[in-house]
Amino acid sequence: MMKATAKAHTNIALIKYWGKRDEELILPTNSSLSLTLDGFHTTTTVDFREELREDRFTLDDTEITGDAYQRVSGFLHRIRLLAGKRELYADVRSVNEVPTAAGFASSASGFAALAAAGSRAIGLSLNDQELSRLTRQGSGSASRSIYGGFAEWQMGEKPDGSDSHAVPIAPIDHWDIRVAAVVLSSTQKDVSSRAGMKRTVETSPFYSGWLDSIPRDMEEIKSGIAAKDFEKVGQVAEANCLKMHATTLGAHPPFTYWHDTTMAVMQKVREMRAAGIPAYFTIDAGPNVKVLYLPEQEKQVEETLRSIPGVTDVRLSKSGKGVQYL
Amino acid sequence: MMKATAKAHTNIALIKYWGKRDEELILPTNSSLSLTLDGFHTTTTVDFREELREDRFTLDDTEITGDAYQRVSGFLHRIRLLAGKRELYADVRSVNEVPTAAGFASSASGFAALAAAGSRAIGLSLNDQELSRLTRQGSGSASRSIYGGFAEWQMGEKPDGSDSHAVPIAPIDHWDIRVAAVVLSSTQKDVSSRAGMKRTVETSPFYSGWLDSIPRDMEEIKSGIAAKDFEKVGQVAEANCLKMHATTLGAHPPFTYWHDTTMAVMQKVREMRAAGIPAYFTIDAGPNVKVLYLPEQEKQVEETLRSIPGVTDVRLSKSGKGVQYL
Repeated sequence: MMKATAKAHTNIALIKYWGKRDEELILPTNSSLSLTLDGFHTTTTVDFREELREDRFTLDDTEITGDAYQRVSGFLHRIRLLAGKRELYADVRSVNEVPTAAGFASSASGFAALAAAGSRAIGLSLNDQELSRLTRQGSGSASRSIYGGFAEWQMGEKPDGSDSHAVPIAPIDHWDIRVAAVVLSSTQKDVSSRAGMKRTVETSPFYSGWLDSIPRDMEEIKSGIAAKDFEKVGQVAEANCLKMHATTLGAHPPFTYWHDTTMAVMQKVREMRAAGIPAYFTIDAGPNVKVLYLPEQEKQVEETLRSIPGVTDVRLSKSGKGVQYL
Repeated sequence: MMKATAKAHTNIALIKYWGKRDEELILPTNSSLSLTLDGFHTTTTVDFREELREDRFTLDDTEITGDAYQRVSGFLHRIRLLAGKRELYADVRSVNEVPTAAGFASSASGFAALAAAGSRAIGLSLNDQELSRLTRQGSGSASRSIYGGFAEWQMGEKPDGSDSHAVPIAPIDHWDIRVAAVVLSSTQKDVSSRAGMKRTVETSPFYSGWLDSIPRDMEEIKSGIAAKDFEKVGQVAEANCLKMHATTLGAHPPFTYWHDTTMAVMQKVREMRAAGIPAYFTIDAGPNVKVLYLPEQEKQVEETLRSIPGVTDVRLSKSGKGVQYL
């Protein structure tokens, strides 16, 4: 039987992935670092069957066609090539527990689960780094979701991408820091993350400044994580997020993922800090905000965030596990 | 009698002045371009009198002491040195019609009026460029308020600042474009423009990208002004403003002048454009927004801006005159 099921969690980048040096292999222009989160996951079963003449992809009981199907089928083809089985098609069934409205890219947990289930189903036996490298070719940020806790996607240097994969940077139970996903009533975005990244790399006068600043951010946040220094980790993560978003303001034409409520949440987080509550924000390529905090401030942080006009939901999350086979 | 009165208007920068290469002489790191506005002005009388043993400064009928006094007196000293009259003190009386709440720096109209009245009172006979150069040493952006309409502050290259002054770039009645000053209910700013500029120059990884992008912006906006191409002028001005604000997000520590309502106004301006109303925003080192528009859209623009929650006032302005002696 060529069938396997895997579950993977999403992750939130504290040092952002923002730019590709190779669109086809998904090789990044900078290393990134994330925390894998529990509570937001995808479970995927891949079933390779001799009788199938093409791949099938069902997400949450809906048969998927179009671009999303093409992306999944294209990724399965990489798995087929790796296994030397070009003509073997699969039935893929995914269940997403990544609320899209919370602004988590379901592609991170989705491609991590797909890579794990698909590679195991076809008979490949990959270690974590090999799995991360494979996953990266489906979705860059998904390469980090192979691991639980804190993971670094090392950008690598080689043109073939063989040294571009994630590595864990702490034991999974190293540190209990929390993330509140702040959901906004208006979540429209005019520029996709993929398109925004590309436009920024190609046209923003700030892009080289962004790249130059990464090695130091990476060094600082890793030393902060090792020392469990929340203030340091929070400051670096927040500053890194602001830099990423600054690059889009310089693009041609300029754009931003921020809404007025995005700004209101940022202000509120700064106010919490001024009032002695350690909390820091980070924002991906969309208007929603994620807030980092420590377990002892959970109640206060949640209540404060829920009180902001324009915030419709706040979802709390802890550090999550890496890929699991079911 | 060594007494003179001058009136000067504020200006709004379309290419921002953002960074000094010499703090003492106020020499900028980039050239800037502005539109002088009617309706927001300062009228100043300078009276040099033998019997005075120190300068006096009265603003809107209030005797001023402290930093603001020191800045005015220090500037009068430059005028005294220029005239070779070191021991002659002045009574300065200013009336400001620059509503501070509208987010216009009163220093632009203030120092332009002070320089004009002071230099004439002491017997100097300066042409516009000489007056602009003198004014620059009191407040950088004030150097542009010597002229009506569009003016460019050419950064110059010389260490003594002799080539750093503004020049007019179009006849004063060249083009009737309008500016709506959108006043927000919350106008707090945590970082002064002076301090923000300095922190950005010293710590932002985006600062060199900002500087690199100026010559092209300057060339484009000048050709847009010459051709009365409102879309071109608006696009360049808005993009330039976004770049300036992006640089602050990369500073260490990062900061922003934007509030949630600032973002709401920017969104609304983009929505107006999507609805076919040509309007563009620009923002100085504070949360308030200025909106550029054409006379035929005045009513619609004003109404739309007034409808935004958190906006307390909208003040309309046309192109204004340069320094006048009364």
